[in-house]
Amino acid sequence: MAPRSWLDIAPDSPFSLADIPFGIITTPVSSSPHVGVATGEHALDLSVFALCSGSSDCRAITSHLEVFSQPALNDFAALGRAVHRENAGALIRGIDNALHPNYMHLPVGYHGRASSVAVSGTSIRRPHGQVMGNPTAEVPKPIFTPSKRLDFELELGAFVCKANKMGEPVSIKEAEENIFGLVLMNDWSARDIQAWEMVPLGPFNSKIFGTSGSAWVVLMDALEPFRASGIENENGVLPYMREGKEENVYDLNLEVELTIMANSIGVSPYVLTIYAAKSGTSTTIAGTNGKYLLFSFPQMLAHHTAGGCPMQVGDLLGSGTVSGTEPGTMSGSMLELSANGNNKIQLHGGDERTFLKDYNTLTLKGRAGGEEGGLVGFGECTGSIEPAITMQ
Amino acid sequence: MAPRSWLDIAPDSPFSLADIPFGIITTPVSSSPHVGVATGEHALDLSVFALCSGSSDCRAITSHLEVFSQPALNDFAALGRAVHRENAGALIRGIDNALHPNYMHLPVGYHGRASSVAVSGTSIRRPHGQVMGNPTAEVPKPIFTPSKRLDFELELGAFVCKANKMGEPVSIKEAEENIFGLVLMNDWSARDIQAWEMVPLGPFNSKIFGTSGSAWVVLMDALEPFRASGIENENGVLPYMREGKEENVYDLNLEVELTIMANSIGVSPYVLTIYAAKSGTSTTIAGTNGKYLLFSFPQMLAHHTAGGCPMQVGDLLGSGTVSGTEPGTMSGSMLELSANGNNKIQLHGGDERTFLKDYNTLTLKGRAGGEEGGLVGFGECTGSIEPAITMQ
Repeated sequence: MAPRSWLDIAPDSPFSLADIPFGIITTPVSSSPHVGVATGEHALDLSVFALCSGSSDCRAITSHLEVFSQPALNDFAALGRAVHRENAGALIRGIDNALHPNYMHLPVGYHGRASSVAVSGTSIRRPHGQVMGNPTAEVPKPIFTPSKRLDFELELGAFVCKANKMGEPVSIKEAEENIFGLVLMNDWSARDIQAWEMVPLGPFNSKIFGTSGSAWVVLMDALEPFRASGIENENGVLPYMREGKEENVYDLNLEVELTIMANSIGVSPYVLTIYAAKSGTSTTIAGTNGKYLLFSFPQMLAHHTAGGCPMQVGDLLGSGTVSGTEPGTMSGSMLELSANGNNKIQLHGGDERTFLKDYNTLTLKGRAGGEEGGLVGFGECTGSIEPAITMQ
Repeated sequence: MAPRSWLDIAPDSPFSLADIPFGIITTPVSSSPHVGVATGEHALDLSVFALCSGSSDCRAITSHLEVFSQPALNDFAALGRAVHRENAGALIRGIDNALHPNYMHLPVGYHGRASSVAVSGTSIRRPHGQVMGNPTAEVPKPIFTPSKRLDFELELGAFVCKANKMGEPVSIKEAEENIFGLVLMNDWSARDIQAWEMVPLGPFNSKIFGTSGSAWVVLMDALEPFRASGIENENGVLPYMREGKEENVYDLNLEVELTIMANSIGVSPYVLTIYAAKSGTSTTIAGTNGKYLLFSFPQMLAHHTAGGCPMQVGDLLGSGTVSGTEPGTMSGSMLELSANGNNKIQLHGGDERTFLKDYNTLTLKGRAGGEEGGLVGFGECTGSIEPAITMQ
C-alpha cells in the first residue's frame, strides 16, 4: 500500500507520494526561483521547509540547505543520489537513426544546444533553414525557407548529477549513481533541413532551435519499482557498457497528444492566447513505453565518457526517439507516424496531418504504476508552434 | 609606422602594440584569475589599471570596470565591439568533410563539448573508444581500444560576444559585431573512432575528449588591417549569408610544429616534466593561412542562428580545419598530411609519423604582418599526448 499524506491527493494524481519530482518554483511570497517538490495539486517549497527545519530528520541534507534556495537543481543534484534517497525518505516517504552497422553496438548520438533547452509551455518558433529546392534535380540546389516538415521526437531526458574530470571516464559501475532523474523531452526536429545538412557531420540547424523538457524531475529512486528489460540487443555489448543486470530501463507509459484550435485558420494574437488555455480538439497520436530503449542511460553515460569527455552537473542526456517493438508502440515522431510524410495521420474533428502546422500544440505525457494511489507521473511536456518570423 | 610604447617590445614579439590580445592572468599580488592584455613579454593587469583610473580617457569603459576583475572574458566581451574599439585605442592604441552536395552551400558543422575546451598547455589523454576490429570483415565488429589514429586539427576559434534570443536569428549584417576575437584552436580527433561512429549522426566520442585553445584572444579590431578574400565559393551563397564584402577572412600565417623527446621511449614522470620544458626535436609539419576558409565567421554565425538557435556570450565557433588551395598549404591535420595514414611524415632526427604517439607535443602558431614591429601574433596553442589510462 502506498504511503499516506496529510494532503488530499487524488488517486489519479500523477504526482503521488511515490513520485515527489523536483522542480523550480516561485511563490507569492518568494518571486526568486527556488526548489520545490510536486505532490498532488501542491508544491512543497523546500527553501521554506529548510528554514523551518523540516528536514532535521535527514542528517545528510542538513549541512546543505542552501541548495534549495538556488534557481536551478544543479547544486542539489551534485550532492549525489545517496543524499537524495535519504532526503526523499525523510520528506514524505532511439536512438535516432536508420540501421547502420554501428546501431546495435553503441548509442549513436550527437550534441545539441544547452542554450535552446526550454521548459514545458515555452512556444517554439518554426525555424528557417536550407532545404533542397527540388530533391530530384541532378545537381541539388538549396533554398532558404521556413521548415515545411516540422516534427517532434518523444524522448526521455536524464540529468547528470556528478561531474567527472577530463580524461577520467565514468565506469559502467559508477554510471547509475551519476544520474539524478528523468524528464519527458521533446527534441523538436525540422526534417527537411535535416535531410539536406546531415551528411557527413550529423544534424545541426535541424535540431538546435528548441528542445522542450517537462518541468518536474522524477528521481531515479522513484522509478526503481518500475524497472524493466529494454530491447534485446542481440550483439550483446562490449564490456565497458555491461551493467550485469537485465532490467536497466523503466516501464513508463508514454503518450503524445496533438491539439488543434477550431479557429486556428484566423492567425491573430488572440489565437495565441486561446492556445495558452489549451482548449481545442486533442487527439492522442502516439503511445509507447519507456522500456523501449536499446541502451540504458547508465550505458549512454559510460559510452559518452569512455574517451574521457568531462560531464558536468546538469548535463541533459536525451534517449533518442522512444519507438517500441510491438504494434501501436512503434512511432515517437511524425516522421514515423506518417511514414516519412506518405500517410496522413487522422485527427479528431476530421482534420489530418503529416507534419506540424502553426499553432498546433504538442503534449507529451508519462506515468508509471497507479495502483492504490502510487502513480509516478511526469508533468506534461507541452509546446505550441509559432509561425516563422519574417526574414529581412 | 607602428605606435611606440614605454615598454621595450622586441620587433619580433608576437604581441606587438598592434595586437594587444586579451586573456586571463594571475599575478604575485592577485592570485584570483582576472583580465589582462599581453604586450611584448609583459601582461598589463587590467583590474589594477582600472583601479588606478588608467582607462579614464575611455568613456565607454569607465562604467564597466568590474569586468576586468572577472575570472573569464565573458562580461567584457558582452560589452560589445564598439566598447572594445574605444577601449583598445585608449589603452595603447572548414570545413571538416569531404565534398558532399551541401559543401559549398552551408558551413557544415556539428556541436562539440564546451566542457572539454582546455587552455594551451593542458595535456590531452589518448582516448579509448569503439573502433572497427577488422574493417574488411563482412559483418564489421567493433573492439574497445585506445585510439591508434590520434590526430590534430588546425583551426581558428571565434568567441561570441553578444547573445541572441531563442527564435531570433542574428542577421548577416549584425553578425560581425557579435564576434569578439580569435584564438588558435586544436580540435583533437581520433580518426579510428570517428570512422566507426560518425554515420549517420556525425562525430561524437572522436572529438569530445579535448579541444585546445591559445590563451590570448586577439580582438577582431586588431585583425582589421589583415583582411583578405577567402576561398572562392563558385555557387555564391544564399542571401541570408551574403556579406556584401569580398574580404571577409584574414591573412594569417599558421604553422604546426611537432615535438618529440629524444628519450621518450622511457615513460616516466620525469619525461612529462621534460616535456613541459618543451625541449626535444621539433619539426614544422604544416603551414597554411587563415584566409583559406570557404565561409567567414560572420557567415557561420548567421547560419548557426538562422533557425533561431540562441547563442551565448563565450560560445566558441571553430572554423574547421584550415586547408589551403595552394601547394604546401593544403594540410591542417595528420589525416591530410599522411594521406589517411598511407604516407609517412618525415621528422627531424630521422623519425617519422602517420598519427600522433604518446608524449608528442603539438604546437600551433599564428601571426599576421610584422613590418616595423606591428606583428599581430597569437599565443601558441600547445598540447602533449598523455598515454591512455588503464581501463578496469
